[in-house]
Amino acid sequence: MSGVNEVEHPAHAPGAPIVTVIGDGQLARMMQTAAIELGCSLRLLAGSRDASAAQVCADVLLGDFRNLASVREAAAGSDAITFDHEHVPNEHLDELIAEGFNVQPQPEALIFAQDKLLMRKKLREVGAPVPPFAAIESVDDGLAFWDAVEGQVCLKARRGGYDGKGVWFPGQREELRELVSSLLEAGTPLMAEKKVALRGELSAMVARTPSGATQPWPVVASVQENGVCAQATAPAPGIDAELRRRAETLSIDIARELGVTGVLAVELFLSEDENGQADISINELAMRPHNTGHWTQDGCITSQFEQHIRAVLDLPLGATNTTAPYTVMANVLGAERDPSMPMADRVAKVMHVVPDAKIHLYGKQHRPGRKIGHVNACGEDLESVRRRAQAAAHFLRHAQWPEGFAPESL
Amino acid sequence: MSGVNEVEHPAHAPGAPIVTVIGDGQLARMMQTAAIELGCSLRLLAGSRDASAAQVCADVLLGDFRNLASVREAAAGSDAITFDHEHVPNEHLDELIAEGFNVQPQPEALIFAQDKLLMRKKLREVGAPVPPFAAIESVDDGLAFWDAVEGQVCLKARRGGYDGKGVWFPGQREELRELVSSLLEAGTPLMAEKKVALRGELSAMVARTPSGATQPWPVVASVQENGVCAQATAPAPGIDAELRRRAETLSIDIARELGVTGVLAVELFLSEDENGQADISINELAMRPHNTGHWTQDGCITSQFEQHIRAVLDLPLGATNTTAPYTVMANVLGAERDPSMPMADRVAKVMHVVPDAKIHLYGKQHRPGRKIGHVNACGEDLESVRRRAQAAAHFLRHAQWPEGFAPESL
Ligand SMILES: Nc1ncnc2c1ncn2[C@@H]1O[C@H](COP(=O)(O)OP(=O)(O)OP(=O)(O)O)[C@@H](O)[C@H]1O
Ligand SMILES: Nc1ncnc2c1ncn2[C@@H]1O[C@H](COP(=O)(O)OP(=O)(O)OP(=O)(O)O)[C@@H](O)[C@H]1O
Repeated sequence: MSGVNEVEHPAHAPGAPIVTVIGDGQLARMMQTAAIELGCSLRLLAGSRDASAAQVCADVLLGDFRNLASVREAAAGSDAITFDHEHVPNEHLDELIAEGFNVQPQPEALIFAQDKLLMRKKLREVGAPVPPFAAIESVDDGLAFWDAVEGQVCLKARRGGYDGKGVWFPGQREELRELVSSLLEAGTPLMAEKKVALRGELSAMVARTPSGATQPWPVVASVQENGVCAQATAPAPGIDAELRRRAETLSIDIARELGVTGVLAVELFLSEDENGQADISINELAMRPHNTGHWTQDGCITSQFEQHIRAVLDLPLGATNTTAPYTVMANVLGAERDPSMPMADRVAKVMHVVPDAKIHLYGKQHRPGRKIGHVNACGEDLESVRRRAQAAAHFLRHAQWPEGFAPESL
Repeated sequence: MSGVNEVEHPAHAPGAPIVTVIGDGQLARMMQTAAIELGCSLRLLAGSRDASAAQVCADVLLGDFRNLASVREAAAGSDAITFDHEHVPNEHLDELIAEGFNVQPQPEALIFAQDKLLMRKKLREVGAPVPPFAAIESVDDGLAFWDAVEGQVCLKARRGGYDGKGVWFPGQREELRELVSSLLEAGTPLMAEKKVALRGELSAMVARTPSGATQPWPVVASVQENGVCAQATAPAPGIDAELRRRAETLSIDIARELGVTGVLAVELFLSEDENGQADISINELAMRPHNTGHWTQDGCITSQFEQHIRAVLDLPLGATNTTAPYTVMANVLGAERDPSMPMADRVAKVMHVVPDAKIHLYGKQHRPGRKIGHVNACGEDLESVRRRAQAAAHFLRHAQWPEGFAPESL
């Protein structure tokens, strides 16, 4: 008998395509579950053996995604190379493409998910709605923008932000001056956009294949807390059909215009125009499965993870009809202090009280604010669906039910 | 950078339970997809690195399930040990239990899924309906049974049969005599039961935890072709509520009486009683996820694979409401001759023509008659659902649409 440490060659399904994913987080992990059912399996370039996705893949290469040799080694022999984040240097990807590798999405598209300023310039160029914005290369640029938008300023790092990190809302002209000055000094390229009076946030997601086929999902409403996605509701309630169609069309147009392949998430601001009519503008693009698409695992015929695999392999896209009138996804974030009740006991408790909650955990150690899982709930009555998803996620986080929640009330 | 061959210790999620599965087939593979989403991951005792489940697990031990040392090594450090087949020798399991391992289901229950004669004796003892049967230890036993049931004989090997192998329907008394004589000579323990005039076949599935909680699924109708499950429809159409309830109750009672833990499938004969009323009797028990439960992956809140993991870990069971009015599962069996069109191209074609087909492939090489995958389709109109599932599975098998099927007719 030989243990795993003596096994040299991880096997993949005979005749099935191999997808290499650069990255080892929960998105790669959930791509693996989709891949398995499709009869494939992933090859992973992971930072460590105990990373979320590395726990559940047979074919794991340990290495650094900033290192061309590592990325090339992971890519060797695979049918498509894709990502669970946007941080692989584009020059490496250009090099791989030059060497004949099939990288999806490609750097020409990825650049617009990496740089918030280039993204906005491109979107404006193709006629997509974005709030007023400007490059901020000096304190004077900042102050001029402040004046132009009458102090309604949202300052953003052009690159590397996530979960609200790299986003600032200076309340005073003076505060903006100091912020810009110290950030530029620290070498952070900046842009500013007008602070939008938010009625809410939406997410329009779509998949696109290299051959050009597109398939959108129903638009969802998302709730952010401290810059982090806390909840998503599909389909977005209280949005009229025209606006829904507009958001959907927008996501398809952007995927086409920017040459996106795989899954694209278009995060949208929902606001009001001069006439008090609902209006949308674009906040952010992500070119991979996205937190606001996790609901598709349990509420949609084709999940975003399956669709991403299909898309990067240039396979026909799956149907995106919902399988329930409403699905609510609630994120499980690490609490400020991890409760003493072990996570396994919290899971058991939630399973007991909410037997239809779909619990998804990422195999991650607790850290305050860290995304460690999510819960989906489906059903007809939105309030009840939301209560269940929220309560389940809250208990997984705090080992307590939310205030006012009586477990019997389900 | 180090490749996978230098990795020594496969990691599991911190704080999450580890389930060891003895076996490496598609059932173990699909347990892994369920485990991943629950935040765990499986440890596998596999026969080879390229086996269906071994392709998709990080923690794989290679070894023989008939070897106690191998089974013990795979079990070490896991929270529960379970199976994707019934062939682990019970004396090994007794030994592991004596050593303190948590084996689910336990040999006391498993024996009734291993030996068709013991199963029937036990079922009769607890008052569950089985066709008339007898032990066949001699040619005379066989002939006496032939006379007692007026030639309506189904002869079965007591152990080791699957997919109709080990089941015979002798047409003549003389044929029975020869069969029994040669099988006994070859050392095959036998039993016989009355050949039932089948109206159809049903499957009643249920999960049970070590603590005694039970949760049934809706009863499904199955279609067998040459002794192999070809199709399952959930819920079983054309069955009245009383019979459905009876089958469901029966599965729960059997799980309790036999002390089954994990998933139990009760394969049922559907026949007519003296008054022409629909009647059921038991054909077979399986104590693990079962082919007739694959529909739950796409048509039910909790799949049989997730439920099995929950059950063997003694976690609360998930809801088993359906998520669609009808789900049809169609098996993909290896064709007599594998078509020249590569499987990957067949998959692409099916994805194009049936975008809502849920394709599940097992990563297996073609062999005639081998189960290599299945397709689920869901919807309101049973005929259309069945047509789509069947057509998709047929194309994956033959690289041709079924006769009379026009792709546009969807
Ligand atoms: N122009 C704006 N006006 C009003 N609110 C804004 C604006 N830009 C950002 N926000 C708020 O800050 C949140 C985080 O901003 P943004 O999405 O740009 O950050 P991020 O770090 O890239 O986050 P993510 O990981 O969600 O992409 C938004 O979801 C929104 O609630
Ligand atoms: N007593 C019977 N009367 C009529 N048909 C029978 C009888 N027993 C078995 N069959 C037919 O033969 C098929 C296979 O029999 P059985 O389920 O016992 O075999 P198996 O090899 O254990 O199959 P499986 O892998 O499905 O459990 C049944 O599904 C049924 O169609």
